[in-house]
Amino acid sequence: MEFSSRLLERAVNEMSQLPGIGKRTALRLVLHILRQPKEQTVALSEALQAMRNEVKFCSSCHNISDQDLCELCANPNRDSSTICIVEDIKDVMAIENTSSFKGTYHVLGGKISPMDGIGPHDLNIESLVKKVKEGTINELIFALSSTMEGDTTNFYIYKQIQEYQIFTSTIARGISVGDELEYADEITLGRSIVNRIPFETSLKH
Amino acid sequence: MEFSSRLLERAVNEMSQLPGIGKRTALRLVLHILRQPKEQTVALSEALQAMRNEVKFCSSCHNISDQDLCELCANPNRDSSTICIVEDIKDVMAIENTSSFKGTYHVLGGKISPMDGIGPHDLNIESLVKKVKEGTINELIFALSSTMEGDTTNFYIYKQIQEYQIFTSTIARGISVGDELEYADEITLGRSIVNRIPFETSLKH
Repeated sequence: MEFSSRLLERAVNEMSQLPGIGKRTALRLVLHILRQPKEQTVALSEALQAMRNEVKFCSSCHNISDQDLCELCANPNRDSSTICIVEDIKDVMAIENTSSFKGTYHVLGGKISPMDGIGPHDLNIESLVKKVKEGTINELIFALSSTMEGDTTNFYIYKQIQEYQIFTSTIARGISVGDELEYADEITLGRSIVNRIPFETSLKH
Repeated sequence: MEFSSRLLERAVNEMSQLPGIGKRTALRLVLHILRQPKEQTVALSEALQAMRNEVKFCSSCHNISDQDLCELCANPNRDSSTICIVEDIKDVMAIENTSSFKGTYHVLGGKISPMDGIGPHDLNIESLVKKVKEGTINELIFALSSTMEGDTTNFYIYKQIQEYQIFTSTIARGISVGDELEYADEITLGRSIVNRIPFETSLKH
């Protein structure tokens, strides 16, 4: 792509570093920015820089936070003895949106993935095991995605904490609410039959 | 969407002001930025601000430029008596990529569109008419998109300059190279038959 301005070219190049944004999309975004008031560009740049420089990660659950301890961990109404283990911040937001969980979280920051060079020590596993050792935890809920990497991570953590007397669970896998059985994949449908629940339980939701 | 950090929320909100970027995509982009080195955020912010504050528009053709006169207008090898009228900067880049045009451009900055509140005076039409009046122009090529707004704009400009002795043309409409006739729309196919060109001419390209 030939640009008639170095400034434009630099902005497009920086913008196209973002995931899923190619040169063409970057150009469209940058030309949009050019048409907007200068204040908007300043607001965007400052918001990004402020976030990048000032944002903290909760010292307990590693969720993104403005304070040392995030709002969820600091909330006395949340059950800190039940911990839901998730991959990243987006998963916390997704579960929070359901309003169905009153425990706290532990954000690993990824999954064990030798292919991508991510080992157990790149994740927040040690601090989780430490919490378990301290003996204040009753239940650990594994809520990683059910891929090979997710299962490996689950198993790695399980091996570290199995000697302690805590209850472990994983989120239920099954047919999505509203989905048709005929289009479901065999593994999901198979699991949802094997792990069926009492009919009375299903009426409660 | 509930955010555990105001800084994150602000960055996502600013990011989602961009066209085609919703809250979810903005969150994905912002979390990606968080994982990258700080220098990259600084580079992106500075590139956007520098572009927004310092970029100029060519005083002759209104193309984006770092100087008062853009590279195309300043180039003595380009034929400044042949002017191709386009909607915006992206069209200049598209035509330049073909390497088939050695004239210069005139960027209108949009099309006349009463529905969007864009009248002739919001576009760079006056400076074009002034160039024609000065008598240095031989040919005007209309290269706006063939929508109702594009046709209106073409006609508006044509009415202003028709009293002067210049040649006007529009880019050829027809079947795209490599396209199959059976899938072409009737208007395009009809125009391509009516405006057929000598076979010998087509061999030259």
